[in-house]
Amino acid sequence: MFNQIQQQLHKFVQRGLDNHLRLAVTGLSRSGKTAFITSLVDQLLHINMNDNDHLNLFAPAKNGQILSVKRVEQHDLTIPRFEYDRNRQGFENDPPVWSASTTGISEIRLAIRYQRRDSLLRHLKETSTLYLDIFDYPGEWLLDLPLLSQTFKEWSQAQQLVHKGERAELAQTWLSQVKQLDLTAKTDENQLADLSEDYTAYLLKCKEMGMQYIQPGRFVLPHSERGAPVYQFFPLLDLSEQAWQQLAESPKNSIYHTLEKRYQHYQQKIVKPFYEDYFSQFDRQVILADCLTPLNHSQQAFLEMKIGLQQLFKHFHYGNRSLFSRLFSSNIDKLLFVATKADHITTDQIPNLESLMRQLVQEGGRFANFEGIDTAYQAIASIRATDAVIATQEGKQFKAIRGVRSSDKKLVTLYPGSVPSRLPDANYWQYNRFEFDQFEPKQVAFDQPLPHLRMDSVLQFLLGDKF
Amino acid sequence: MFNQIQQQLHKFVQRGLDNHLRLAVTGLSRSGKTAFITSLVDQLLHINMNDNDHLNLFAPAKNGQILSVKRVEQHDLTIPRFEYDRNRQGFENDPPVWSASTTGISEIRLAIRYQRRDSLLRHLKETSTLYLDIFDYPGEWLLDLPLLSQTFKEWSQAQQLVHKGERAELAQTWLSQVKQLDLTAKTDENQLADLSEDYTAYLLKCKEMGMQYIQPGRFVLPHSERGAPVYQFFPLLDLSEQAWQQLAESPKNSIYHTLEKRYQHYQQKIVKPFYEDYFSQFDRQVILADCLTPLNHSQQAFLEMKIGLQQLFKHFHYGNRSLFSRLFSSNIDKLLFVATKADHITTDQIPNLESLMRQLVQEGGRFANFEGIDTAYQAIASIRATDAVIATQEGKQFKAIRGVRSSDKKLVTLYPGSVPSRLPDANYWQYNRFEFDQFEPKQVAFDQPLPHLRMDSVLQFLLGDKF
Repeated sequence: MFNQIQQQLHKFVQRGLDNHLRLAVTGLSRSGKTAFITSLVDQLLHINMNDNDHLNLFAPAKNGQILSVKRVEQHDLTIPRFEYDRNRQGFENDPPVWSASTTGISEIRLAIRYQRRDSLLRHLKETSTLYLDIFDYPGEWLLDLPLLSQTFKEWSQAQQLVHKGERAELAQTWLSQVKQLDLTAKTDENQLADLSEDYTAYLLKCKEMGMQYIQPGRFVLPHSERGAPVYQFFPLLDLSEQAWQQLAESPKNSIYHTLEKRYQHYQQKIVKPFYEDYFSQFDRQVILADCLTPLNHSQQAFLEMKIGLQQLFKHFHYGNRSLFSRLFSSNIDKLLFVATKADHITTDQIPNLESLMRQLVQEGGRFANFEGIDTAYQAIASIRATDAVIATQEGKQFKAIRGVRSSDKKLVTLYPGSVPSRLPDANYWQYNRFEFDQFEPKQVAFDQPLPHLRMDSVLQFLLGDKF
Repeated sequence: MFNQIQQQLHKFVQRGLDNHLRLAVTGLSRSGKTAFITSLVDQLLHINMNDNDHLNLFAPAKNGQILSVKRVEQHDLTIPRFEYDRNRQGFENDPPVWSASTTGISEIRLAIRYQRRDSLLRHLKETSTLYLDIFDYPGEWLLDLPLLSQTFKEWSQAQQLVHKGERAELAQTWLSQVKQLDLTAKTDENQLADLSEDYTAYLLKCKEMGMQYIQPGRFVLPHSERGAPVYQFFPLLDLSEQAWQQLAESPKNSIYHTLEKRYQHYQQKIVKPFYEDYFSQFDRQVILADCLTPLNHSQQAFLEMKIGLQQLFKHFHYGNRSLFSRLFSSNIDKLLFVATKADHITTDQIPNLESLMRQLVQEGGRFANFEGIDTAYQAIASIRATDAVIATQEGKQFKAIRGVRSSDKKLVTLYPGSVPSRLPDANYWQYNRFEFDQFEPKQVAFDQPLPHLRMDSVLQFLLGDKF
C-alpha cells in the first residue's frame, strides 16, 4: 500500500518535472524550412554518436547531459507528420536529393531524456524528459497576421506603399480593370471573382519574381477552397480620403462593402484561427530567410524582403501594451533569425551575411529586444552541400567553395562573390553581377548525421537553457 | 412615431414570414451532382419565361405564385461558391461542354419571392421570400457518417463483408503486407504510413472499377492533409474473436492500439465536424445515383452500389430512438433519390430505371418512411442531352434516342438496350452486353432554360409545399 502511494507520488513528480517546448519554424518561401527541420531533428537523433563531434557548440550534448533522443507520436493527429525519414532517405540515396518542400503545417515530436543539473531535484528524480514539438508552417501565414490589426482601409493604404516600380507594372491587368469599377454600384459576384483571379495572378507573379511581401499570403498557397468568396477580394489603391468617405456611405450591397466584408471574414475565419490554434501556443520561433537569392534578383526583391521581415517582427513588437496587444500576446520568449545557405558563400563572407540580415530586420529586432524577447541572428547551412577549399589561380591563393552545381550537376570549385555587409542601394544591382549557384546535397552514410554549418549553435540558442 | 412603430412591426412580420430552406445534394461519384444543381438553379432562374412551359409539373411556377427568383450572396463566405455561371456558360459554348465536377463542399443561395396562399397572412404581407440554400457535398462524406456509430472492431468486421471477389484481388498488395505484421508489436509510424498508402491505393482502384462502397470515403478525395496520421489507418480483416481480445490487451503503443486511436480520431475530428457543422442543419436531402454505369461494369460494382445506398439510408433510419440516435437526429423531412441520366435510355425504360433504384435502396427506404421522412424516387435527366425518336430498321419501328455520342462526337441514333426492372443476378452480366453510351450536351440559346427531363417534378417534390 505504502509502496503504491510512493509509486504514484514518484510518477506525479516525474510528470511535473517533464517539460514541453513548442518550437515553430517558418520562413519566406524557398528559405529552406524542410532542410532546416530535417537537419535539426537529425542532429538530435544522432546525439551520443562520434563523441558528439557534430554538436561541439551544443553544451547539453557535449557535456553528456542528454541521455537519449527518440521520436514519439505527435499529439494532434490531424496535422500532417513532418516527413523526416523520407527526407533523410533522400540524402542517403545515390545520387542524393533535396527534400520536397511542404505547403501547409506539419509537426514532429521528439522526446529528449536528460540528466537534471539542479541537485535538489535530482534526489527526487534521476532523469527528466523534454518533449520537443517542432511545427513547420508557411511564412505566408505569418505574413497574414498583421491583417488582424488593420481595417480594410488601413490594409489597402499599406499595400499602396509597396505598389511601385516592378510591382505597378505587374499589377496592370488587375488594376486597369478595377479603375473602371464604380465601387458604390451593386456587387456582381462573378465580376469580383474574375478580378480576384487577376489579383491572385498578380501576387503569384510577384512571388515568382522573388518579391516576398505578399498579402493576403494564403492567396498564393495551393488550397482547395479557392472558389470561396473569402478568397475573392483585393485592396483598393489610389483613393483619396474623400473617396474613402464616399465609399463608406455607399449602400450595404455595394462592391466596396462586399470587399470590406470579405476582408473582415478573412481576418476572422482564416487568419484568427491560425493565431488562436497555433501561433499563440508557440514557445519559440525560428524565422528563416534566404538572403542570397534576392541579391540575384533585384533591388525591389530585396526591399520587399526587408518589408516582409519587418512586418513579421511587428507581432513580437506588439508585446503586451495596448488593449489591442492582447490579441497578439504570445508566449514566445526566444526568436531566432536564420540566414540559410551559408555554405553557398566562402567562410570569410559569413559575417557579412549575418550583418546583412541583422540590418534587414534591424528595426523589428530592436522592438523584439524591447519586449523582452531574446533575439538572435545566425548564418548557417542546415545541410552543408559544399566544402570550403583554398584555390589557386594565376599563382594567387583564395578561399573558394567546392560542390556539385545543381544547374549542370558538375563538381565545381568557385568563388561566388562577396556579400554586401550593408543594405545595398540601386547602384549595387547595376554594377554587381551577383550569381549564387545552387548546389546538390552530398551523399550521407546511413549511420552518420547530416553535415551542417552551425546547427549546433542554433540548438544551443533554442534549447540550451532547457536542460 | 406611430408610423415608425407600424413600419417596425411590418418589418418584423415580414421577416417572420420569410423562410429558409437548406437543401443538400450529394451522390456517389460521377452521379452528376454538378449538372443537377446547375439545372435546378437554372430552371428556377428562368421562372416566368415562356409561360413556364419548362416547369409544367412545378405548381407554384405554373400557377404564377412565384413572382421572381434571384441569386443572393451566401451566408458562409468560407464555403466555395457553386459555379453556376461558369457551368451555364459551358452549355452556351460552341461546342457545348459538360461542367467540371466539384471535389468539396460548395453553396449557392437563391431568393424566391412569392405570393402567399393563406389569405389571413396576405393581409399582413403581400409577398414572402423563400431563401433557398443549396449545398453540394461529396457522397464520400455521407458514406463516412456510418463510422460514427461503429467501433474500430465493428467497422473492420463490416469491411470484411464486402471484401470478396474482385475486391479481395485488388487488396492483395496491401493485405499480404498486413498479414505479416505482429499487431501487438510497437508502432512504427513509417510502416503504418506505407501500409496506409497501399490501402488508399487499393480504395482508389476500387473506385476506378466502379465500386461505390468506399470507407473511409475521404481517403479517395484529393486534400492537402494527406500526410496526417489521421489518414493513416486501415481495417483489420480475418481476425477471430480471440485475436481481437488479444489485441485489446496489447500494450498501449502497439500497432493495433495506434490504428484504433487513429480511427477514433478520424471519427471525432474529421467525420463529426461535417455532421455537426453541416449535415445536422440540412432540411432536405437529394441523393443522386447513376444506376446505369454500374450495369456496364460488373455484378460486384452493382452490389456495392446497393450496399453504399443502404449504408446512406441508415442515417435516416436511426431517427430518434436510442441514446445513440441523438447523434444522428437530423432535421431532414424529405429525402429524394434520383436516378440520373434517364435521357440515356428510351422513355419506355424509365419505369424500369425507377423500379431498379427503388429496389436498390428498398430496405433503407422502408426505414425512412417509418421514421416519418417523406421519401421519393425519381428517374430524371438534369440536363437532357438526347432526343427521343422513332427509328425504323428492317421495316420495324422502335423507340430510340438520338444525340452526339461522347466517344466519337458523332450524331447517332441508337437503342441502348433494356434496363432490368429488378436487381439482376450474376447471369445477367454473362448474357447481357450492356453498353450505355455517354452523350455530349446540346447547345442552349443564351435566353433559354437548360433542357431537362422531369426536373419540374423534382422541384415540385422538394419545394412545392413551401409556397
